[in-house]
Amino acid sequence: MDLAEGVLKGDRRALARLLTLVENRSPGVEETLRRLYPHSGRARCIGVTGLPGAGKSTLVYALTAELRRRGVKVGVIAIDPSSPFTRGALLGDRIRMQDLTSDPGVFIRSMATRGAMGGLAAGTIDAMMVMDAFGMDVIIVETVGAGQDEVDVVRAAQTVLVVEIPGTGDEVQSLKAGILEIADIFVVNKADREGVDATVAHLRQLISLQPKQERAYAIPVIKTVAVANDGISALANAIEAHQRFLSESGRLEKRNAERVRFQILALSQHRLMERLLKASQEAGLLEELVQAVNARTLDPYVAARRLEQVIEDPVHLTTSI
Amino acid sequence: MDLAEGVLKGDRRALARLLTLVENRSPGVEETLRRLYPHSGRARCIGVTGLPGAGKSTLVYALTAELRRRGVKVGVIAIDPSSPFTRGALLGDRIRMQDLTSDPGVFIRSMATRGAMGGLAAGTIDAMMVMDAFGMDVIIVETVGAGQDEVDVVRAAQTVLVVEIPGTGDEVQSLKAGILEIADIFVVNKADREGVDATVAHLRQLISLQPKQERAYAIPVIKTVAVANDGISALANAIEAHQRFLSESGRLEKRNAERVRFQILALSQHRLMERLLKASQEAGLLEELVQAVNARTLDPYVAARRLEQVIEDPVHLTTSI
Repeated sequence: MDLAEGVLKGDRRALARLLTLVENRSPGVEETLRRLYPHSGRARCIGVTGLPGAGKSTLVYALTAELRRRGVKVGVIAIDPSSPFTRGALLGDRIRMQDLTSDPGVFIRSMATRGAMGGLAAGTIDAMMVMDAFGMDVIIVETVGAGQDEVDVVRAAQTVLVVEIPGTGDEVQSLKAGILEIADIFVVNKADREGVDATVAHLRQLISLQPKQERAYAIPVIKTVAVANDGISALANAIEAHQRFLSESGRLEKRNAERVRFQILALSQHRLMERLLKASQEAGLLEELVQAVNARTLDPYVAARRLEQVIEDPVHLTTSI
Repeated sequence: MDLAEGVLKGDRRALARLLTLVENRSPGVEETLRRLYPHSGRARCIGVTGLPGAGKSTLVYALTAELRRRGVKVGVIAIDPSSPFTRGALLGDRIRMQDLTSDPGVFIRSMATRGAMGGLAAGTIDAMMVMDAFGMDVIIVETVGAGQDEVDVVRAAQTVLVVEIPGTGDEVQSLKAGILEIADIFVVNKADREGVDATVAHLRQLISLQPKQERAYAIPVIKTVAVANDGISALANAIEAHQRFLSESGRLEKRNAERVRFQILALSQHRLMERLLKASQEAGLLEELVQAVNARTLDPYVAARRLEQVIEDPVHLTTSI
């Protein structure tokens, strides 16, 4: 079966297979993605980020169910750093998600994209585009909010939710590193716990200190208890309000351009590094350089330059394009 | 003053200035680093990772003080995602560290390396090398253990400490993503809290499930209360034991080669992306591509290829080397 055609026809198995190819960044997948690209651009993209333990998965589950009640088709992409150990840990969430996965208006995909070098970002944005072309109205991307790569991925969304839980000021501040600036909505989940008011007040204070505040848009702080479905409707409303603000203020165009910029760079980065690795391994060059640098007969800066010449070499150039 | 010479003579101001140049990846800094490289290779490198709130900074502080009592000179590199907001949050730790910073056998540096694209990894490994050439015996790198970039950086250390705190099984498992495999020593900090025994038992169980276990080295689980200096001596002993294991088993060489390999790739990646960005911005090419892709008259995959041609173009090649 032709995968691009299958995805455009709404075939879920084609969607699943293409997402696997995207995840593995299989050779030739770009041709399929290129054919889907003109059919994308309609879906709204929501990023959900926060520390482990904040209840992000449960929140995404509840939000998805709420959006379904509003007649919205939802694609979910959950990103976790690649580890054979974690597969088991997600089982609980997977079981919880099961009643949603039988709904044809929902598609949930967990991606364990390999390593850095732009692969995570490129793969996630591709997966978002594929779900968009498939016909999902909203794509939710869930990621741990601590690494630079993960922050970058969430930045590619139009509306970014930062999920906190009631806790000490210390922990709240820790998450802020690189995250606060990208929050469009703060969610205080597990809001039935002690200390919720202090956390909300703390977040409001942080928001008031933010230098790049939009006058036309006040970042809301929404209290939720996702397991009990409390506050989820208010959250969905806040997301809609932010999307309305983006459209009416002309910011949507700007956000989308930022994502495209990031996507092009991530794709280039990933492709260049793949070519670099492949060509240098074929030639045994990388291991040669590693040995020389480790023996201190060569320094790493000259080694890096020699490695780069693999890409600049027109012989490799013609074979890899 | 010549910075390389200053660093080799043990001039702390030269060290501080060079680390700033490394952090900013200033043009020309590589020449200085190249001169220092042959003088490096003696220091032992310890990576410390864990979630925000695990008390990593306090643990690093206590460990540094313990190593000083053992006559070891210590360099500390603390990495946090770049954010103007977080500067204030670290104030408490900075004050706590003050009595150490007046010790000439200690140098503490917090690095807020900009963005992804290999810059974080390249900058951190360079900073480790500089502190090594300066004459530090042990370099401790502290990073949040959640992002792929951060995991990669810690992987560059010889001995990796993963810091946990007593808590629910959920939270313990969340951290495991990509982290468990790289732990050489588990630390359960804040071990005076409830649930410590369950956490230790849980970690022991996870260790026993690890497929790539070394028969000659059992990963220890060390309980600490860093604020009270409890367990810190045992931790320093465990680090020494692991370093002994590395040396005696011949693994040290292998670890160092892995770091060199990672460093060369990170440097190449960072340099290539810098050239790509610079050349494509000069030509206005990137913004042109972004507009075309956003208007859907071009797809991102072709746009990425066009962008890469900036690097393959021999005109740009000669100007950028």
